[in-house]
Amino acid sequence: MKFIQTPVKGMQDFLPADMVLRQHVLGLIRDTYARFGFDEIETPVMEHIENLTGRQGGENEKLIFKVLKRGAELERGLKSGELADSALRYDLTVPLCRYYACHRNDLPSPFKALQIGNVFRADRPQKGRFRQFTQCDIDIIGDGSIMAEIELIAATSKALTTIFAEVGISAFTIHLNDRRVLKAMAANAGFNEDQYDEIFIILDKMDKIGLDGVKENLLEEGFAAESVEKYVSFFRLLEEGTDMKEFILLTCGTDAAQGMSDDLSSIMEAVSGMLDASVTLKFDPTLVRGMSYYTGTIFEITIDNYSFSIAGGGRYDRMVGRFCGQDAPACGFSIGFERIVTILRDLNWKMPQEAEKAAYLVDMKSAGGRVKEVFEKATRLREAGMIVTVQPLRKNAKFQVDMLESAGYGKIEKVYADTVL
Amino acid sequence: MKFIQTPVKGMQDFLPADMVLRQHVLGLIRDTYARFGFDEIETPVMEHIENLTGRQGGENEKLIFKVLKRGAELERGLKSGELADSALRYDLTVPLCRYYACHRNDLPSPFKALQIGNVFRADRPQKGRFRQFTQCDIDIIGDGSIMAEIELIAATSKALTTIFAEVGISAFTIHLNDRRVLKAMAANAGFNEDQYDEIFIILDKMDKIGLDGVKENLLEEGFAAESVEKYVSFFRLLEEGTDMKEFILLTCGTDAAQGMSDDLSSIMEAVSGMLDASVTLKFDPTLVRGMSYYTGTIFEITIDNYSFSIAGGGRYDRMVGRFCGQDAPACGFSIGFERIVTILRDLNWKMPQEAEKAAYLVDMKSAGGRVKEVFEKATRLREAGMIVTVQPLRKNAKFQVDMLESAGYGKIEKVYADTVL
Repeated sequence: MKFIQTPVKGMQDFLPADMVLRQHVLGLIRDTYARFGFDEIETPVMEHIENLTGRQGGENEKLIFKVLKRGAELERGLKSGELADSALRYDLTVPLCRYYACHRNDLPSPFKALQIGNVFRADRPQKGRFRQFTQCDIDIIGDGSIMAEIELIAATSKALTTIFAEVGISAFTIHLNDRRVLKAMAANAGFNEDQYDEIFIILDKMDKIGLDGVKENLLEEGFAAESVEKYVSFFRLLEEGTDMKEFILLTCGTDAAQGMSDDLSSIMEAVSGMLDASVTLKFDPTLVRGMSYYTGTIFEITIDNYSFSIAGGGRYDRMVGRFCGQDAPACGFSIGFERIVTILRDLNWKMPQEAEKAAYLVDMKSAGGRVKEVFEKATRLREAGMIVTVQPLRKNAKFQVDMLESAGYGKIEKVYADTVL
Repeated sequence: MKFIQTPVKGMQDFLPADMVLRQHVLGLIRDTYARFGFDEIETPVMEHIENLTGRQGGENEKLIFKVLKRGAELERGLKSGELADSALRYDLTVPLCRYYACHRNDLPSPFKALQIGNVFRADRPQKGRFRQFTQCDIDIIGDGSIMAEIELIAATSKALTTIFAEVGISAFTIHLNDRRVLKAMAANAGFNEDQYDEIFIILDKMDKIGLDGVKENLLEEGFAAESVEKYVSFFRLLEEGTDMKEFILLTCGTDAAQGMSDDLSSIMEAVSGMLDASVTLKFDPTLVRGMSYYTGTIFEITIDNYSFSIAGGGRYDRMVGRFCGQDAPACGFSIGFERIVTILRDLNWKMPQEAEKAAYLVDMKSAGGRVKEVFEKATRLREAGMIVTVQPLRKNAKFQVDMLESAGYGKIEKVYADTVL
């Protein structure tokens, strides 16, 4: 028998200090979202393979871990496509849609869901990227109005400001855009629909390479110079300080522009009234969001001075229908939980308030007969709300005491035959 | 594209009301164990297949879900044994041992661990048995003294009494035995070591079939009449009211009997001092516990009037060593989380205290312009600690209101153009 001590490739063990941070952050997230009326749900980590390979997941579908079918079937020399009928989920959105389809008659409408769970992707492991990681998603299904966006953005912003207040960070930016604006602008510039994906991938690099870089990239990829010029000129308007309404009317060139602009304005107006003063909410026509299932508003939250987003989401009005056979508007916002805990750890996060901790180390050779008494003492302190551990005093008492001190035990008492408790 | 709405066979979706109960119970468990100084840890749901098939898991090893190897390897026509190198864990004990082996230099000693997580078994689904379910384990590694047993039993008992107090149940029985007593009794009766497993399976039925039933069963299975008679006479001593010490000395017939008896006495004495008055702690020589890895004390907790145990555990001093290459004493106690929530639901558990809940249903046709105002009101109430949801008023307002009422919303206000907020 050969045992392997390390976790499976790309997966993480969490030490006690990691878990204190993770559970604390999850607690803040749950509390905040509960106050916004989101109901927590849970789905299994395994899904039917048909549900995970329906092109909803884009690139993630290539990364799924399939679960081997069980039993005798395996012996009959099946081919690779027949070996698995279920797999580990790569996100929480596909399971949510299946869940809603299955249980919609038992759910309120609109349905405001919070889902916290592990997802799995067979990505090449690298710093900060794991094959099992936790996602925290809120979604509203059955509300086609802008009230869904307002609740999602306000709730996520509240959760993040609460979390980051503990390390003294309060400056966030909420980026807001609409996939329909994105598409109308590209159409208005003269691009064809089948070119959008490639264009948006380049546009998405704006914050790294600037508008000139985007232009250069588009030309290099062989897009028509005239269209590229027009497209780039749209974004210049923004640099010139054109306000959102005007920008959308000038660049989209469709009859729908007025409506899109009104919706975004109303969302921004209502959300602003709910935000902490240090949070900026801005229209950002360079915001793309990768997933092709988005149909309307899209949004992201960044921490000022960090290059990546810590939350992202948008409206996906046509995905639930594929599971239900009946369309239902939907909108969601996902917190990048792993990124958040990484940042907090880098900033030396400390538990804001912790119960008092006491350790009793019993010398079993001399005080063995006092075990009952020590535990009675521990019971009284625990009932008063303290964290108490009772352990045999080890030969290497220094290591034992050091470890307890580093775990926050303020009172460490060695118990011998004559110790007064 | 064909989507499947139901969860994967044998797995569960949890509705909001289920989750309120589950999260509440997990919260009580976490709080209680934290006060006893247990540190929460987490391991990945996937493990190396070598670790899961090392005969630690007994029957459970036949039930593992294997995860298909990825990529090109699959195309080369591998045989079934070569298709997977990892699998979903079937319990939390094997991952804990691997974790301890991997991280022991960073962990306190003794190490008091709490692990809460999903485990997976491809069991035939049936009422109350699922293919994915949650386990809550506490373990102490590195403490060979009876203090480990005392802490584990007291902590688990405290967690369970706290949980069940909410449905008015306070009567529990803690059953305590020792695998060494179990074996010594069988040896003393004249059975051979290779017969123990079969004998213990029959003994385990005592609570259902009684001592006469056990005797009959043993004889039917062909065990020597003389040994069966002697073995059964041991248990008669118990019916006659023989106390634990005397019972062990009379039935075990080994030099070790005195020591085992002293240890069990000391555990019972110390634990009794920590228990609520309604909890019974008793020596139960018919307690078997299935897993062969137990090496010493074993224990179970039953609720009076229910036939099954709701928590179980014991000492397993030789398992960690197989991962570490160096022995470490270990003892654990696992709560049957799914059984507990099932019982609580059957007994109509209600959330003991919940924040006030208010819903604002906005008639978008008439009050669309007041969205900002409504959300400002919601923000104020949320900051005061209330749970508030803001939604568009639906055409089928009755269903909407009914669902909100059943979810505990005490204040439900419809907002029209002239509603005073």
